[in-house]
Amino acid sequence: MLKVTLVGKGAVSKHLERVFSNTNSVEVTEVLSSRGDALLKALQNSRRRNSEVSKIVQPDIYIIAVRDDVITTVSKQLAKCSQLIVHTSGSVSIDAIAEGSRRGVFYPLQTFSKGRKVDFERIPICIEAEKKGDLDLLNTLATSVSKSVYEISSEQRKSLHLAAVFVNNFTNHLFQIGNEICESSDLPFDILKPLISETVEKISALPPIDAQTGPAKRNDQKTIERHLKQLHNKTYQKVYQILTESIKETYGEEL
Amino acid sequence: MLKVTLVGKGAVSKHLERVFSNTNSVEVTEVLSSRGDALLKALQNSRRRNSEVSKIVQPDIYIIAVRDDVITTVSKQLAKCSQLIVHTSGSVSIDAIAEGSRRGVFYPLQTFSKGRKVDFERIPICIEAEKKGDLDLLNTLATSVSKSVYEISSEQRKSLHLAAVFVNNFTNHLFQIGNEICESSDLPFDILKPLISETVEKISALPPIDAQTGPAKRNDQKTIERHLKQLHNKTYQKVYQILTESIKETYGEEL
Repeated sequence: MLKVTLVGKGAVSKHLERVFSNTNSVEVTEVLSSRGDALLKALQNSRRRNSEVSKIVQPDIYIIAVRDDVITTVSKQLAKCSQLIVHTSGSVSIDAIAEGSRRGVFYPLQTFSKGRKVDFERIPICIEAEKKGDLDLLNTLATSVSKSVYEISSEQRKSLHLAAVFVNNFTNHLFQIGNEICESSDLPFDILKPLISETVEKISALPPIDAQTGPAKRNDQKTIERHLKQLHNKTYQKVYQILTESIKETYGEEL
Repeated sequence: MLKVTLVGKGAVSKHLERVFSNTNSVEVTEVLSSRGDALLKALQNSRRRNSEVSKIVQPDIYIIAVRDDVITTVSKQLAKCSQLIVHTSGSVSIDAIAEGSRRGVFYPLQTFSKGRKVDFERIPICIEAEKKGDLDLLNTLATSVSKSVYEISSEQRKSLHLAAVFVNNFTNHLFQIGNEICESSDLPFDILKPLISETVEKISALPPIDAQTGPAKRNDQKTIERHLKQLHNKTYQKVYQILTESIKETYGEEL
């Protein structure tokens, strides 16, 4: 049984707690707050309890699931631990964890919202560690909850996180603009959902570069100009212009 | 049995031919080429044949599935017909069809690629006609192949088409950028697909404005700046900047 202590009480921590608890191979020994000196006190208490009952319930791994900018601070409070310490961030290097520790990364590539369940089995988990033994430990942890586990360097993870911003955050914003355009013409957003589904299903069969359609790809200037006139929001106009320019550049040689 | 003649031999025409042929209530009498004077000759032949055998196999509806900029030209060649004439375009007004005809629109809101089957039942079909009887005819035709049929004006259809460019064309381009970023770091694009699926599944439960996450939403300037440095393509940098600006503006009041 792998023993895991979670540090942080946000969405990622909550999801991990739930998914580990559903396995037979991982036990969540504690979920500690990362705020103020709550963590230090909790660690002291935990050690005292353990020595009193002479039982070792120390975890094998500390998972720090906190905001990017406090990972280093939190990891310093754990610095005296001999356990593997990992963070869960896509955009932070393994070096953010205090030196001298056994360091690693356990990054589930997914968007987590409180109250929304996700099917963890399908989530790619990107792991990284400095020592072979620690990597094996993370691999055991990751495969206990997911079918796709990738060993990814800090450099690669940074690229992946950037790509994720494009395909997730920015894509969602385009949906939001589509929703607004529908609302302003008394159209239900639902009317766009089958198109959105097909947009995604298509790329399971075709690479996106081959799936591209639309006025920018066709270089249909008349439609592009009419669309720009239809948009009253100046920022949305700029979004339309730059994405059109980018598509044109991508297919430029074919025109 | 509704009789339909298709004009044009592109992707939309091919999809409509296949899907109508699978019903018991619609017969595709002919698929005519729209090129040059092929259409005029075909119409003359068709009329001569009909008068010879004294049978009426004239269609109830002509569906012009051709490029936006030739809809008017093609419809003029059909101008002497007494049948309902419709086009299938999202961005062209009903008025593009030659005056004096019984005019309409039959717009399936979907992205069609040759060689890729789509589940027509789920595709919203937007219909428009000038006369109640013609609208009923189009409604019968549309409901024979789709479960969601909307009566939409030319003005609304223009907005819908613009919204579709955002959620389909532009979204696919963001996938393409994500793909490129992965490739440049030796990462398989497949690693992003569960995230892409969740991005879409999420909006079935939450409106996109509530589903937004990421550095722009959090106003996490440090991450935004690092991401911009990671991007070597100047146009992709601009795409990142303007989408970030647009997200910040959307959530500005909450910051």
